[in-house]
Amino acid sequence: MSTSLELLDFVETQKVELYSDLRALQLESGKSLSPVEVAYETYGTLNSEGTNGVLICHALTANSHAAGRYATNGKTPGWWDGLIGPGKALDTNKYFVVCPNILGSCYGTTGPTSVNPVTGRAYRLSFPQLTVRDIVRVQKQLLDFLGIQKLAAACGSSLGGMQVLEWGIMYPDFCEALIPISTAARQPAWCIALNAATRSAITSDPEWKNGDYTDQPAGGLALARMIGMISYRSPKEFETRFGRNRRDPSGFAYDPDNLFQVESYLRHQGDKLVKRFDANTYVYLSRATDFHDVTWGRGLLRDVLGSITSKTLCIGVSSDVRYPKQYQHEIVQFVPDSKYAEINSIHGHDAFLIEFEQLNRMIKGFLQRGY
Amino acid sequence: MSTSLELLDFVETQKVELYSDLRALQLESGKSLSPVEVAYETYGTLNSEGTNGVLICHALTANSHAAGRYATNGKTPGWWDGLIGPGKALDTNKYFVVCPNILGSCYGTTGPTSVNPVTGRAYRLSFPQLTVRDIVRVQKQLLDFLGIQKLAAACGSSLGGMQVLEWGIMYPDFCEALIPISTAARQPAWCIALNAATRSAITSDPEWKNGDYTDQPAGGLALARMIGMISYRSPKEFETRFGRNRRDPSGFAYDPDNLFQVESYLRHQGDKLVKRFDANTYVYLSRATDFHDVTWGRGLLRDVLGSITSKTLCIGVSSDVRYPKQYQHEIVQFVPDSKYAEINSIHGHDAFLIEFEQLNRMIKGFLQRGY
Repeated sequence: MSTSLELLDFVETQKVELYSDLRALQLESGKSLSPVEVAYETYGTLNSEGTNGVLICHALTANSHAAGRYATNGKTPGWWDGLIGPGKALDTNKYFVVCPNILGSCYGTTGPTSVNPVTGRAYRLSFPQLTVRDIVRVQKQLLDFLGIQKLAAACGSSLGGMQVLEWGIMYPDFCEALIPISTAARQPAWCIALNAATRSAITSDPEWKNGDYTDQPAGGLALARMIGMISYRSPKEFETRFGRNRRDPSGFAYDPDNLFQVESYLRHQGDKLVKRFDANTYVYLSRATDFHDVTWGRGLLRDVLGSITSKTLCIGVSSDVRYPKQYQHEIVQFVPDSKYAEINSIHGHDAFLIEFEQLNRMIKGFLQRGY
Repeated sequence: MSTSLELLDFVETQKVELYSDLRALQLESGKSLSPVEVAYETYGTLNSEGTNGVLICHALTANSHAAGRYATNGKTPGWWDGLIGPGKALDTNKYFVVCPNILGSCYGTTGPTSVNPVTGRAYRLSFPQLTVRDIVRVQKQLLDFLGIQKLAAACGSSLGGMQVLEWGIMYPDFCEALIPISTAARQPAWCIALNAATRSAITSDPEWKNGDYTDQPAGGLALARMIGMISYRSPKEFETRFGRNRRDPSGFAYDPDNLFQVESYLRHQGDKLVKRFDANTYVYLSRATDFHDVTWGRGLLRDVLGSITSKTLCIGVSSDVRYPKQYQHEIVQFVPDSKYAEINSIHGHDAFLIEFEQLNRMIKGFLQRGY
């Protein structure tokens, strides 16, 4: 293996069509889907035994561009570039790293924005409801296609971490190691409440038109993002970063149009998401997150998590208000070969996109030496 | 004094017009307002010295009906009935309890829904932006009108607690005791973020029509309430009360229309608020909350809070995610004659409307014996 820094510098998104007519994807809902196109990126080289794969499972609004830069429009590195590459925790000189865009997303993998081959029109709300287990099933199909016999590790945060847990349960001998981050074995009620508010924001925007919009329901999707961001970051970060600062510091204190900086920030985050993400997709994937429950149809939590044989490093963030450490402790309590590690950060749930130094140290140590 | 249980059982909302043309209310914004009608209720009898008054300061969407029942439509007791009455902590055999509807509200006191005497039409967005200090100034005018020379105590939670702090600062010799509950000396950035999202929910509803709606922007106001409720209650309460239960427990697990109970609950809370509260009023009062900062125009926090001479019982709630105990600790750190007490509850920020047994014990003890 000789993947150089240069090779990783220019990456490409690839696509493959899986699940032909003859072998449609059977969803948890009982419905089926065919074909399923999957967009993915790979970094590094698969060894001849097919045993050095590392799967990256992404969260709600992310995509397959986890590392490196594109040759064109190459300014923005992948969202986990800090962890993936030569010498990094997910070392591309050692591992064949794969990041697929998840089922139901809008970044190249089949989802509500894709064209339904039967009707010739976009699925939109006729897309079947999907679950985390469906997402994982499609990922397994992709890894089979790529010739991966065994994963050295499956990693992911938030909705990505839910996929990682399902990997350990659905394919118990396939992953040597699991690294679920900032996640829970079952979606907590408070997170369902937050997601319910975001879905209401989208579906109560008249521009949503029951999913049949021409232009995005921009107001609703932006508001959904605002609501989300409040729990993706931490109260302490907002206090430190914005405090009570105003957009115009010398402006009048009681002028409603002189926004608080934190309000401007949220609006900006909302507008940014509208430009890059699809509203129906948001609704589908947030529901998939709410449906996440490793015990569903299986049994008791201790037995289900107890069936995981992979060695597991479960990572939490000190300031995560969305999935506080109690949820990672619950995982570690029941997964036999597991340990908890904590990112010390004020960045809350989103720390997995920021605290690369701590993550590199934790994950590198875990993969090289165990706990 | 001989206020009996029967007397309190039937209460009436009274109204008074303050701030005539000749002596308009001067607002913090520099604007003025005249006249200002104030709706209020009183329970108990004022003593001849005018020194047994207790002021109840209400929160964002509450009203002057803090205790007792109306003779007609009398099923619902006031929102703090558990604390106000003969033998209760705010004992109406001893105290003359006053609860005014706050300036800018829509329950009888002048606010955005009131008719502007100059135009003959409702103020709506032409209503001047108000602040907590303006609210307190009007309350003082009402107490003067009622002949109250000194307050035995001012009490309130959340936005009500902000008023209580301002009472201690603006009228330092007037209140013998202050009881601020679940509040902060300055609105924290995370709360501004939450409020910003609720305001966006209202103002991005096309039915809002820049405040000139005929029918309420029901979707936006309901969504604002949903967002609010998520932080008014606690993750633990949602987990215990709703967990992952569905509206139809025997329904299909992956049916998006089979709502989670917590989602139904939030929608129900949203619909309830639409029936009883005005959208523009919500925007004005939530901004007043965000503008709350006892230091504004005054100096350092330690000096401003240090100027409070009233004995102060600052109450927090163990599970409050909106104003966690650190904010009450900050108050107690700087208010000279003060102490912190904690309500042990899973009900979060809203515990002040629920945990009457603990509140009665704390407040009764404090008023009778000091800390």
